Parts: sequence; C-alpha cells; structure tokens
Amino acid sequence: MDSTLRYREAGLLQEPDDGFEQHHRVSHDALDRIYEPVLGRLERTVEILAGVGLEEPVYLSELLRHAMTPTGKRLRPALTLLASNFHPNDGAKAEMLASAVELLHVASLVHDDTVDNSEVRRGRATVSSLWGKDAAVLAGDYLFAKSATFMCDTGNIRVIRRFAETAMELSSGELHELASAYNPDQTRDEYLRRIRNKTASLFATAGESGGILSGASEPTVQALREYSYNVGMAFQIVDDILDFEGRSEEVGKPVGNDLAQGILTLPAIMVIERYPEDNPVTSLCRQPDDEDSLRRSLELIQDSSILADSLAVAGGFTAKALDALGSLEPNPSRESLEALVSYVVQRRR
Amino acid sequence: MDSTLRYREAGLLQEPDDGFEQHHRVSHDALDRIYEPVLGRLERTVEILAGVGLEEPVYLSELLRHAMTPTGKRLRPALTLLASNFHPNDGAKAEMLASAVELLHVASLVHDDTVDNSEVRRGRATVSSLWGKDAAVLAGDYLFAKSATFMCDTGNIRVIRRFAETAMELSSGELHELASAYNPDQTRDEYLRRIRNKTASLFATAGESGGILSGASEPTVQALREYSYNVGMAFQIVDDILDFEGRSEEVGKPVGNDLAQGILTLPAIMVIERYPEDNPVTSLCRQPDDEDSLRRSLELIQDSSILADSLAVAGGFTAKALDALGSLEPNPSRESLEALVSYVVQRRR
Repeated sequence: MDSTLRYREAGLLQEPDDGFEQHHRVSHDALDRIYEPVLGRLERTVEILAGVGLEEPVYLSELLRHAMTPTGKRLRPALTLLASNFHPNDGAKAEMLASAVELLHVASLVHDDTVDNSEVRRGRATVSSLWGKDAAVLAGDYLFAKSATFMCDTGNIRVIRRFAETAMELSSGELHELASAYNPDQTRDEYLRRIRNKTASLFATAGESGGILSGASEPTVQALREYSYNVGMAFQIVDDILDFEGRSEEVGKPVGNDLAQGILTLPAIMVIERYPEDNPVTSLCRQPDDEDSLRRSLELIQDSSILADSLAVAGGFTAKALDALGSLEPNPSRESLEALVSYVVQRRR
Repeated sequence: MDSTLRYREAGLLQEPDDGFEQHHRVSHDALDRIYEPVLGRLERTVEILAGVGLEEPVYLSELLRHAMTPTGKRLRPALTLLASNFHPNDGAKAEMLASAVELLHVASLVHDDTVDNSEVRRGRATVSSLWGKDAAVLAGDYLFAKSATFMCDTGNIRVIRRFAETAMELSSGELHELASAYNPDQTRDEYLRRIRNKTASLFATAGESGGILSGASEPTVQALREYSYNVGMAFQIVDDILDFEGRSEEVGKPVGNDLAQGILTLPAIMVIERYPEDNPVTSLCRQPDDEDSLRRSLELIQDSSILADSLAVAGGFTAKALDALGSLEPNPSRESLEALVSYVVQRRR
C-alpha cells in the first residue's frame, strides 16, 4: 500500500543541489585527465547506459532513469576500458563490458540503498526513498538482468561467468555486512573479506575482463586483475575512512553514518583492537541506541592515529596495485592506471 | 537494526506442518507419473540444487537452505527436461539448465515474498519473515547470480541471453503488479501482459532453451516455446482463480489474498468489465481499507460465473499449448507434456 502511494507521488523528484553539482564537475575534471586514453569509449559507454529502460513502460522507465542519473565517477567503466588497452582491439566489446560493469554497480547500489534505508545517493533522493523499498527491489532486479544482457553482448562465456560469480560475491559481502552489524567480535580479516566481496570483486572482474576481451595474454590478464583487485580494496578502505571525516554538510551525508548503523569498518575495528577490554565501539554494539557511545567512538577515531593508520592499510593495497602495473607494457593507459591509484587515495569523497 | 535482530533470532526456524507435507507428497505422486520420462534427470537436478550455498559461510548458507526447501512442484525444471527430449542428447546441459530455471524461480519467489510481505510460502515461513526484508533482498540477489552461473554451464550464449531477458521480464511484471495495485482502470490486456512477463516468460524460456540445448531443429524449438508459453499463461490464470477458491485453512493462505492487497487479477477485472458503472472491486480500489467492499467482491466472484469464465480463458491458452504439441514427434515426453496441461488446469493448489 505504502509503496504504491509513494510510487504514484514520485512525480515530485528532488533535484540535486548546486553545491553537489559543482563539486561533481570539479572532480570529473580531474578524472577526465586520467580517463583521457579512453574518453571516446567512455562517452559511448555513457550513451549505451543512457538508453537503458527507454523502451520500457512508464512505470518502469521513470524509475530506471532516476536510478541511472546523475552518473557517478564512472570509475569502474573507465577501469574496464583502460584495462582493455594492453592489446589491439576495436573496442566495441570493451564498451559493452564497461556498460555491464557500471550497470551491475548501479543495480547493487539500488539494492544497497534499499537495505540501508539510505535517503540520498549522489546528492539525489534514492529510488527506495521515492518509490518505496518494494519498487526498488524489483528495479534493482531489472538492472541486474539488463547488465547480464550487456554481458552477453561480449560473446565471451568466461567473462559472463566471472560476472555472475561477481554478482554472487557482491550480495554475499552485503549480506555479511548486514549479518555482522553491531557485532564487536568481528575481526579485521572478516572486514577485509567483506570488502573484497562487496567492492574489490567487481573492480577485479572489470580489470580482468577488460584484459580478456582485448585478447591480451594470460599474464597481462592476471596483472590487470591483481592491479584492479588491490585498487578496489584501497578504494573501499578510503571510502570507509571518508565516512569518519569532515562535517556532514561538506560530504553530503552524516559523518559516522556506517557506525551509527552498526556497520563496523576498519577504523571502528581498530578501536576494538586497541582497547579490547573497554571501548566505546563495543559499548555501542551492546547498546545500539546509546548516543554517547557513538559520540565517544567518533571522537576517539577522529582524534587518534586511527584514520592515518587505516590509510596506511589502504596504502599496502595501492603498493601491490602499482607492483602489478609494473609488469605491464608502458603506455598512456598504464600511466592513467597509475594516476588512478593516487586519485583513489587522495579523493575527498 | 530490526532485520539484524531478526537475523540473529532466525535460529528458530519453523517446521512445515504435517498437513502440508502430506498434501505435498500426494501431489508429488501425481506429478511423478507425468515426470516419468525425466525422473532420473530431475533427481540429479534436485541434487544440484541441494548443493547451492553449502560452500558459503553460515550467515548465508542457512538462509539459502531455508529458501531452497522444501522443493515445490518442480514444474519448471521438469518442463525444461521434457522439452529437451525431442532430440538425442546426453542430458548434462539440460540438467544444468533445469537447475538454473528453478533457481531463478526460487530467487524471484524470495523477492516477491519480500515485496508482498508474505509470511508463508510452500507451508513454511518465508525468508523475509524470518530474516527480515533486507536479508531477503540480498539472498535473492545471490540466488539470481548463482542461477546465472548454472546458465553459463550450458555454454550456450543464445540460451544465456534468453535467460537474462527473462529475468528482466520477471521483474518488469512484478513491478507492474506493484504499480497497478488498486488501479480500477487496468484492462484485461494489461493483466495478460503482466502475467506473460511475471510467469509465462520463464515457462517459455524453459521450453525453448530445453529444445535449443538438445540440438532440436528450429521449428521444434519454436513449438516447444509456443507450448510452454501457453502453459505458463494458463498456469498463472488458474493460480489467480485458486486464490479465490476454498477456505483459508485448506489452501494454506487467506482466500482473496491478492485482492486484499489491491492486486487485480482476471476474476477481479471481470467484475469491473461486467459492472463498469458500480462494483465492489472499484469501491475497494477507492477505499483500500473498506472490509465490506472486499467481502462483497469475494462474494460476487465466488457466486457468479466469473471463476468458470476465467477458467475458460485459461482453456484458450491450454488449447494453443496442445496445438503446438501436435507438431512435435509423438514420444513419451510429448505424452507427459500433454498430461501436464491437464494437471495445470485441474490442480487444486
């Protein structure tokens, strides 16, 4: 009932505010330089994605258009396309692959926002907040399936299979996040396994598949996978650090949002590691509604070396990513992949 | 939060009650005769499905095992396997296909139950009622992706693509059901398009793909698709009729459940068609909480020729299904497909 009403009322779509748009453009400019070797292909990928849902009836197309805009950082499709530049190829398959990768990402975001009860994503109201959770579940399903049809357009069963396995890993990672909420006994290893599943797996598959479809040699494919996996791990750790930084107004979402929802990321786990006997994170897990434990946790994380130490963990992964790059032939795409590593660590959101 | 708690409490799993189990066995006996030509393959399919999730961590495997048991009527995998019996083949690919088809069905059930807030499915508590909607969303995603990996095992891109398209249709059909809830202006054509998407598409793909993987000729493949599509349409119409029949205790779920949730199926649409000026279904749509309109709608449907007339519409589809069968070579599987048509129309649940 509820969701149906919201569905009908959803004509009232929120527009992104100017501050977000401005920031968005600036960060896009920096990325555009990194994306230089694949800008044309990336534009065609965006065009392919812009066509998703256009042929569907209005009850579906409106919702899909909303889920698809505005485009985010296009990190995953750019990675896919850059990875396909280590062996000559006409690029058409890589563009379908990049579209599939981004669409799988968007589909998982739609479901994650539903599960997290997130109101805002990329500065706009989420599908689930506008149309209700039920519609968001089904729209996400549609996008998952649509991304699989793009994957089929690559014509490569090895790549299609990796893609399906990755979708399994994404949901497994998210489910672990849900199942381990407010659990103070989770370890750093469990955290790393979780972010491997929920984030790094798609990065790894994007890089690996870009290599496969370009016809690159197996060592090149494996180096691209290794690079992309490690970039993905670093990306998620930095994302989890950023959740604890800055003021809410700057970052467009509440600071400490993950912890407030009981999701223990690396900085929170470091608190438990350092003060196993008594610490505010464990207290919060035992009393989820205790505002004081939350506040003390945030202060401890922000006023200690924990965020710097977390960044050092991310640095371990970026070092491995750069190592893997070293085995690839030097070319403009390799330079971009190098620059992407710095971007991932230095970005502010 | 809520769902996390439910997740933790879910060790208390409900067992199916004896009545259900007994009925289940009886109806399985009838179907076993129909499934005779593919019983061995069907058993192997069930074994493949029994392995799903076993290798996963406990937070995921428990939930998946619950979603997968008890097995239902195995209608879709049996149809898949029977359809693969019109050209000699070793059966291995057909078994993977049948597993993928059933798993896609289970995945969509998990999400549908989540969307519908259903408490019970196949006589047991649903995943969403035990672990919460959030976990059910992610578990459904995992099952969708897992079914795609089974599909990849067939090694046939045409079949994999049809499968992805079918998953799109399933979600589109369910989304239309959600978007058109309590809408008295929907037509019979819209209803038929909706059940084509949400039900008949998977039947059609099962039959078509079974034919393709067996290496059957294109006319045979098309006849199998035509048969399966029409059986699927009849199956859903009968399902919608059954929702209005019997007492709640007999059928294991409340009578008129769809209408009570604002879902207008063929019988309800027939009420509107017959009394366009004034009827209790339209009244219910305007006042969803009006128990009296619901009661009067149910009485009108049960005490008129509407259920018989709805069955006649289903009969139109079964006639087309039998027509399509006529072009296939006579063999035991064709006889089973014929018997399946009667079963679909005569079943009581």
